[in-house]
Amino acid sequence: MVDEALTGFLDAKDRGAPGGELPYLTTTLRHMLTGGKRLRSLLCVYGWHAVDTPPGPDSTVIHAAASLELFQVFALVHDDVMDDSDTRRGQPSAHRALAAAYTAGGGPGARAEAHGMGAAVLLGDLALVWSDELLHTAGLDAGRLAEVLPLVSEMRSEVMYGQLLDLRATGRALSGDIDSALHVIRYKTAKYTMERPLQIGAALAGASAQVLDACSAFGIPLGEAFQLRDDLLGVFGDPVRTGKSTLDDLREGKATVLMAHAVRAASAGQSATLRELVGRPDLTEEQAAEVREILVSTGARQAVEEMIAQRHDAALAALDRAPFTPQAVEGLRGLARAATRRQV
Amino acid sequence: MVDEALTGFLDAKDRGAPGGELPYLTTTLRHMLTGGKRLRSLLCVYGWHAVDTPPGPDSTVIHAAASLELFQVFALVHDDVMDDSDTRRGQPSAHRALAAAYTAGGGPGARAEAHGMGAAVLLGDLALVWSDELLHTAGLDAGRLAEVLPLVSEMRSEVMYGQLLDLRATGRALSGDIDSALHVIRYKTAKYTMERPLQIGAALAGASAQVLDACSAFGIPLGEAFQLRDDLLGVFGDPVRTGKSTLDDLREGKATVLMAHAVRAASAGQSATLRELVGRPDLTEEQAAEVREILVSTGARQAVEEMIAQRHDAALAALDRAPFTPQAVEGLRGLARAATRRQV
Repeated sequence: MVDEALTGFLDAKDRGAPGGELPYLTTTLRHMLTGGKRLRSLLCVYGWHAVDTPPGPDSTVIHAAASLELFQVFALVHDDVMDDSDTRRGQPSAHRALAAAYTAGGGPGARAEAHGMGAAVLLGDLALVWSDELLHTAGLDAGRLAEVLPLVSEMRSEVMYGQLLDLRATGRALSGDIDSALHVIRYKTAKYTMERPLQIGAALAGASAQVLDACSAFGIPLGEAFQLRDDLLGVFGDPVRTGKSTLDDLREGKATVLMAHAVRAASAGQSATLRELVGRPDLTEEQAAEVREILVSTGARQAVEEMIAQRHDAALAALDRAPFTPQAVEGLRGLARAATRRQV
Repeated sequence: MVDEALTGFLDAKDRGAPGGELPYLTTTLRHMLTGGKRLRSLLCVYGWHAVDTPPGPDSTVIHAAASLELFQVFALVHDDVMDDSDTRRGQPSAHRALAAAYTAGGGPGARAEAHGMGAAVLLGDLALVWSDELLHTAGLDAGRLAEVLPLVSEMRSEVMYGQLLDLRATGRALSGDIDSALHVIRYKTAKYTMERPLQIGAALAGASAQVLDACSAFGIPLGEAFQLRDDLLGVFGDPVRTGKSTLDDLREGKATVLMAHAVRAASAGQSATLRELVGRPDLTEEQAAEVREILVSTGARQAVEEMIAQRHDAALAALDRAPFTPQAVEGLRGLARAATRRQV
């Protein structure tokens, strides 16, 4: 139903444009929308169900969920521009796809890369303002809309604050500061991916302050666990299943909790190897294997697995105390398992 | 009053952030907010006055105007990223300023440019979502907010559509297609700079459909005239006064109405010179002088001056017919003169 809402919205945009140029961007936008886990949609719908148990999700919550998916595409497209990533969800990243479209359309090859970057910035901007429009036109009455908008504002500011922390940490010397790395994922992922979508869904249904607090108590630890799993998959995952190279994070020198653990526990020799290899844009598969070996032998990988398990348990304990409907509790318990044990 | 609203908003953001990192972006954002013409603010306030003549602007319209200024900073910052422009409003563009801040803060020089780009994308994103938040918290009642939001959505989609047209035209072979060049400025500037801010201000005061239509009849021709003047200033202006190099548009090969006129009227020899020089990233001052000579001798400069005069007159004629208060009519007449005869 969310996919239908997204397709219907983009079809209307393409039809309503003053000229025929818009599909140049919306084609890539549609590609970027496929292959996602629809995690924020699920949380939004569960949040809505947490307040009441209606027969099925209505059009308003579906459009709000679709709005979150468009926002996520905005975040991914700009994140890939900032990191200059080649792939996303197993396909070329938006700026790479748009550079290729430019050349295929007869644009000069020398300008293709700059064009792709510029077009992807614009595509992200469009996804962001359209996510707004999808929410504004979801059919909420004016009073309820005014209650939901502050949560959306918070979510947006938080994810951008997390991006800022990430941006400032990237490319710096390796650090053993686990707390800083956790601070980044709290903002960049935990609140944005889990807490806020759940709260927004609940607020759509007129949730009480108690329900909104319970959304936080469940969503923040689970969101941290989700990102910690993501960091493990980014280095140890199967690229065929995740759609992401296991070299990107290491080449980028991403300041993960995993890496901070390894830096703290490394011997002098391991430390020198990490400093030499992590953050090299030309890191080879062999060198990556060396880094992975250190992440395992220092116990960093195991330490992160334990952090994931702790946070999964904390989320479930919060769920047991939450004033949610049984239907929502059951759904969220399954989601917690999937989000922390996933291999994709 | 708009500047105070902006400063107060950003101060609150800096104070409320979970860590001390936010001023890294807000310092540059504050710089970008200085030196603007506050044209959209003026139009928003005039639009509000067009409906009624209260003693002075209230806090709601001031916050809405401030929201438009933040949106404009978003648009400028991302536009400069897309064009890789060095300067804006006489200062370094945001991505240049952020690259310098990164190096000054001890970041590795080799990453400075990529960091500046990434940070500027993020700064623009933040300005965009904060512009939203400023409007949502301007003190509008829920019903009125629901009336204003569709106009804001339209404005945003339009300016991005204009950016898309601009992006696709840039770097292509020179064209004599005046209608295409006009189509771009209608969306990229005329509606965004003039029509929509005026309409948004009017809608804040509960404008009728007749008043909103009159905003369009005045704003669209005036906005086109404004951009045509901008294109002339971009090539013939005084960089000390405009704060913009007179080489940028020519080096970029910007598909302006001015250039389209010249291409249509050029001799074979002039045409060859234009094709050789316009769009060269290394264009020298001497070569630029050659291009300017052709823009004058083909009559292109004069033709654009005439288009400006026609549109200025059309805007004034629309103003005479508009159901606005006398106070708003007087203010808008002065604004029309300033926007079309300006040298900065």
